[in-house]
Amino acid sequence: MRDFSSDHAALALNTASLGHNLEGHGARWEPERVIDACAARGFGSIVFWRREVGARAVAIGERARAAGLAVAGLCRTPFLVGTDAVDRMAVLDEARASIDMAAGLGAAVLTIVVGGVHPGTKGTTESLKIVADRVAALAPYAAERNVKLALEPLNPVYAGNRSCLTTVRDAVDICIAVDASNLGVAVDVYHVWWDSGLDAQLQRAGESRILGYHLCDWLADTRDVLLDRGMMGDGVADLKEIRKSVEAAGYAGPCEVEIFSANNWWKRPPEEVLDVMVERFRTVC
Amino acid sequence: MRDFSSDHAALALNTASLGHNLEGHGARWEPERVIDACAARGFGSIVFWRREVGARAVAIGERARAAGLAVAGLCRTPFLVGTDAVDRMAVLDEARASIDMAAGLGAAVLTIVVGGVHPGTKGTTESLKIVADRVAALAPYAAERNVKLALEPLNPVYAGNRSCLTTVRDAVDICIAVDASNLGVAVDVYHVWWDSGLDAQLQRAGESRILGYHLCDWLADTRDVLLDRGMMGDGVADLKEIRKSVEAAGYAGPCEVEIFSANNWWKRPPEEVLDVMVERFRTVC
Repeated sequence: MRDFSSDHAALALNTASLGHNLEGHGARWEPERVIDACAARGFGSIVFWRREVGARAVAIGERARAAGLAVAGLCRTPFLVGTDAVDRMAVLDEARASIDMAAGLGAAVLTIVVGGVHPGTKGTTESLKIVADRVAALAPYAAERNVKLALEPLNPVYAGNRSCLTTVRDAVDICIAVDASNLGVAVDVYHVWWDSGLDAQLQRAGESRILGYHLCDWLADTRDVLLDRGMMGDGVADLKEIRKSVEAAGYAGPCEVEIFSANNWWKRPPEEVLDVMVERFRTVC
Repeated sequence: MRDFSSDHAALALNTASLGHNLEGHGARWEPERVIDACAARGFGSIVFWRREVGARAVAIGERARAAGLAVAGLCRTPFLVGTDAVDRMAVLDEARASIDMAAGLGAAVLTIVVGGVHPGTKGTTESLKIVADRVAALAPYAAERNVKLALEPLNPVYAGNRSCLTTVRDAVDICIAVDASNLGVAVDVYHVWWDSGLDAQLQRAGESRILGYHLCDWLADTRDVLLDRGMMGDGVADLKEIRKSVEAAGYAGPCEVEIFSANNWWKRPPEEVLDVMVERFRTVC
């Protein structure tokens, strides 16, 4: 297991942790300012959201690398299934546009949040088949542009309308079914911390299919399942144990802090949030 | 698979579906009135909550049976782990009192909602070990009183503070570890509908360990994870498929409707709610 106590080069910022560039936080922080703040603190990489990048993918990617940061990823494709993803061709077109953006940024990985239960179906089985079909259609396009696709299982609380994909097990099943070398899984502690089958499924995934590791914490008394994530150390997820499993399966990439926290961390000065992240990463992750 | 289209004797009411005897709904419905309303509609059994029973367990149980209803269960033991369950002896004493109440009622099954992550621990592993220890201490006491104990896994969204037990897999693991003939699992569609491993785990549990089957539906756009459950047919759970798995594993007991719905079903006249339950049970379950 890697020792981060005196080296946090593996630390990545997911910009969502600062409230998506901090609208409503006094001056809006453009990507450049976030990049500089991360670089100044020794973060190794950064992950953007599409809304922040817009038409400036190439410039932002170059700016990050010039500051010494890798662009570890881009969030995310549009939903591939569910009520807002009925038209297959439209969904694939929009997903290809997000792949283009990731390629422009030079992002190593594009995250996929798959969407909820597809209209006209019940349960998750049929929806997951549609996901597999659409991911199979996208993977070659992404491979040609040197972009890896990471299926991110979300906590089952979101299964109805955000992600019929709820476990690493189901994500690995899709990876095996699609069988594309640039397809894998993103492991977010917020979504998987409760899963006693996690270690076995990470072993099953193997090094080549673990494409991301996302950090935050699950607050015991979570008040909002979207926007009340905890800073590492403030919750009940066993962060050390999960990272041990992820690394035992071969993962040696960035650890990406992604904290949606409307009423706590998003209200604090971003410099403070970044400082706390570094400290927590070195001590409790 | 059983055919309920013209016979709903397997239908059970969990009284929570009427807002726990309908405080604030005009006249309060005492257990006797709920019993009569269920019996009049051909329900086969009923499940009470401790708060409704109080010191009247024997009388209420006899009253239900006199009306032609079996008492299928009692909800529930106190939490066995978590921040409110630190003192082992106090927890076991209170749990034994709930076993006594179940015995007094003549309830076939006492449900166990285990509680959240135990203080001083991270993740669910250590907490589940404490659950197993405490269940093992309670099972003989329950067996002597002819009460079965049903571990109910809850949706992982509750893992922090209500149930570190989140899957049928983990529940079966505890059953195997404790190895008591009166210990099994309660399967609630609200909590397990997303789980692609469910069928395999029900097979692993087997007939003797499936002690309950709870019905409602998962609304795609659930607004509140505690009190916004859907009526069967209004959500995205694949109710027929789940029941098929439960019955293929050997279960032939009651199907217990348990709908917490502060802003919809709890606001409707209880007679209407019961009528809709019967109609949905015959058509979509």
